[in-house]
Amino acid sequence: MNRFRSIIESCDTRWGRLFDLAIQSLIVLSLITFSIETLPNLSEDARRWLRYIEIVTVIIFTLEYLLRLMIADRRLRFAFSFFGIIDLLSILPFYLATGVDLRSIRAFRLLRLFRAFKLVRYSRAIRRFHRALHIAREELVLYALVTLLLLYFSAVGIYYCENEAQPDVFASVFDALWWATCTLTTVGYGDVYPITAGGRVFTFFVLLIGLGIVAVPAGLVASALSKARELED
Amino acid sequence: MNRFRSIIESCDTRWGRLFDLAIQSLIVLSLITFSIETLPNLSEDARRWLRYIEIVTVIIFTLEYLLRLMIADRRLRFAFSFFGIIDLLSILPFYLATGVDLRSIRAFRLLRLFRAFKLVRYSRAIRRFHRALHIAREELVLYALVTLLLLYFSAVGIYYCENEAQPDVFASVFDALWWATCTLTTVGYGDVYPITAGGRVFTFFVLLIGLGIVAVPAGLVASALSKARELED
Amino acid sequence: MNRFRSIIESCDTRWGRLFDLAIQSLIVLSLITFSIETLPNLSEDARRWLRYIEIVTVIIFTLEYLLRLMIADRRLRFAFSFFGIIDLLSILPFYLATGVDLRSIRAFRLLRLFRAFKLVRYSRAIRRFHRALHIAREELVLYALVTLLLLYFSAVGIYYCENEAQPDVFASVFDALWWATCTLTTVGYGDVYPITAGGRVFTFFVLLIGLGIVAVPAGLVASALSKARELED
Amino acid sequence: MNRFRSIIESCDTRWGRLFDLAIQSLIVLSLITFSIETLPNLSEDARRWLRYIEIVTVIIFTLEYLLRLMIADRRLRFAFSFFGIIDLLSILPFYLATGVDLRSIRAFRLLRLFRAFKLVRYSRAIRRFHRALHIAREELVLYALVTLLLLYFSAVGIYYCENEAQPDVFASVFDALWWATCTLTTVGYGDVYPITAGGRVFTFFVLLIGLGIVAVPAGLVASALSKARELED
Repeated sequence: MNRFRSIIESCDTRWGRLFDLAIQSLIVLSLITFSIETLPNLSEDARRWLRYIEIVTVIIFTLEYLLRLMIADRRLRFAFSFFGIIDLLSILPFYLATGVDLRSIRAFRLLRLFRAFKLVRYSRAIRRFHRALHIAREELVLYALVTLLLLYFSAVGIYYCENEAQPDVFASVFDALWWATCTLTTVGYGDVYPITAGGRVFTFFVLLIGLGIVAVPAGLVASALSKARELED
Repeated sequence: MNRFRSIIESCDTRWGRLFDLAIQSLIVLSLITFSIETLPNLSEDARRWLRYIEIVTVIIFTLEYLLRLMIADRRLRFAFSFFGIIDLLSILPFYLATGVDLRSIRAFRLLRLFRAFKLVRYSRAIRRFHRALHIAREELVLYALVTLLLLYFSAVGIYYCENEAQPDVFASVFDALWWATCTLTTVGYGDVYPITAGGRVFTFFVLLIGLGIVAVPAGLVASALSKARELED
Repeated sequence: MNRFRSIIESCDTRWGRLFDLAIQSLIVLSLITFSIETLPNLSEDARRWLRYIEIVTVIIFTLEYLLRLMIADRRLRFAFSFFGIIDLLSILPFYLATGVDLRSIRAFRLLRLFRAFKLVRYSRAIRRFHRALHIAREELVLYALVTLLLLYFSAVGIYYCENEAQPDVFASVFDALWWATCTLTTVGYGDVYPITAGGRVFTFFVLLIGLGIVAVPAGLVASALSKARELED
Repeated sequence: MNRFRSIIESCDTRWGRLFDLAIQSLIVLSLITFSIETLPNLSEDARRWLRYIEIVTVIIFTLEYLLRLMIADRRLRFAFSFFGIIDLLSILPFYLATGVDLRSIRAFRLLRLFRAFKLVRYSRAIRRFHRALHIAREELVLYALVTLLLLYFSAVGIYYCENEAQPDVFASVFDALWWATCTLTTVGYGDVYPITAGGRVFTFFVLLIGLGIVAVPAGLVASALSKARELED
């Protein structure tokens, strides 16, 4: 029992590391097979193989879940902990899918993606990232607010500039919000852009101010991360 | 009277916080209803409901404005203060719209957006942002200047490179300025881009230099914000 | 004579500031009129007015140039200094244009833009920027080199990935270089992009590595500017 | 012999610097001629000249390689060192191409590009960059992981949002991954973008979170580089 516990719950021993590595590889494998399954013109043969891999994966994940449940000091507490629920959600849809109508499987498939969250479980490195987020928390919230306000004002402004010239593209403030999102993040797909002189001048000023706002959080996180590293030393 | 004052003007007491929260929620609600109103194919029913919400919102904002005016030590001073004017502008268009020709309402609608500025009023967090802007003020002004010069030179350069090959797209220096804005901010909608070899080589050099200039202000604001946080401690 | 010198050469006295402001405004005015002149469908009337403004501007700049030359301690030295040459180049094309065939004026027009460099002359603030560039000089040169290498390798890679699938778009390594420029600067006009699976995977890796390289110089300049400010204190 | 060694292996003496400069120029020249060769409509004459330059370049590089091999203290060790292999790979394809079927030369051409790596050999400045990468190593690996996870979740999310509306564009999770790459790096070519309301709202949230993640590594490298410079002093 203690042997099991050291293998499954810690990654300090040799077998613990091997177990972790195997589970992580399986998670990645299941993510890849899921992606392949979405390809439109798969042969029947390929579909069958993907199904086999899926079954094996789910069986292993189920065994792992049961082991973790068995080992846990307080079983109910584990079952309702964040990772306990994630673990369950990553296998449950499979069993439900076989019992329920097959067409409804599509909706449940989305849940199967929660399996990927298991990757989070095994990586210790994310802790430092959490600390950095905590340091810059207030500024990030503030910037989220300022960015949202800026997005809203940009959208309303461009709506009044462009609605008459392009009634289909800038049909409402919501379409204008899509434009504001694409523009202020500098993605600029090119599906929505101003064509009037007024709209272009407005875009010019929005970008001049906006870039000094939208691009700042990345710098904040970077400096917070260096601080988190210093605090660790 | 003092009771009222503590509720409306401060957000330290329980009722003050509740009052603030209610007003802020109402502002957000009115921003959302305004956005929905711009949707092109709204049913008569939806329009009527939006109108009802608008009326209730304006009544509450009017009561709030009158309360604030009543409570203020120097009423005239409040009426002509920044927020006094914003408060008034956020309700006035509604009353004017009913008295004036209905078609002219469209122009006044833009003013109704000033209502959003009320959001600024209630958020304390923006103060720190102001301080950061003050620290990096000189550099930001300098960069705004350098950026404007760069935009102008890029525009003139691309105009001479591309005008002959694309006389409709790069029709004048103003069209070229639009290109320069989209390119140096890396938005790149794809509505205007160089096609000649000369124009592409020019773009290459402009971007090589330009990115080292246009992207800097965000870094300046980020470092200024960390300084502002240090000064706060 | 000393009176003149203090007005023209320094901006500490009241008249010196006024003189500077007037010349700067005139430079901006002449830049704007130049831009308006490039508009395709100008009326004869507008053209005539632009011509008048141009003549007055050149006369004032000529007087200013002669005054500066007269005042200078070593006249030849001033005439061949950087700003002496810029000052001359900003007025000379006008006089040459009237003597020479009018159609050749188009080529000389480009030189008229050097007038804008005069803006540089009057702004003290750019000095600090120069210092920052000096601090980060080595890193910036290194990054320019690394960026150029990355651009070249990306271009060759995408050329081999996409040339067969899109022989017109990725016709040569030079076209691929244009793609690399647009992609690594994240401008992404959308005129050139990979369509094959190989090209997309290649782009994915190039961007993953490239963004960590191309976006760094802006951060370097930002930190160098804060250092330059600290050194100033 | 010692004379030779000082010229070829060091760049402290005058002749050593000259030799280095000559080889570097030749490398750049051969990179340019390679690029020109890919142009689709080259005349027979131009092709012949490019061939001549290629032959001369390869002969000089061969002589250089033999000299380096001759001079080396441990010849086998040099031959199998990183730069020894690069040096060989940059000349070998030429000799193989003449012996083998000419059509297969196209595949070998890619290898000829390794020649460019020789540029790396001669630049001392890259060492500092290596140190900076070492400092920020852990954070960069962490960010690469977080970015990959984010790309995957964004891709799956947009696949479920857009697959029904645009079955050709978002045909599978792999196409969605291409969209995620273009969007989160803010390249935004405009070949793939969401059109449904759900897809746009999803994109909005992905960008809000994603930009705070994808843009951070550049800031990390920038701060690591300043640290590397401080450590050097």
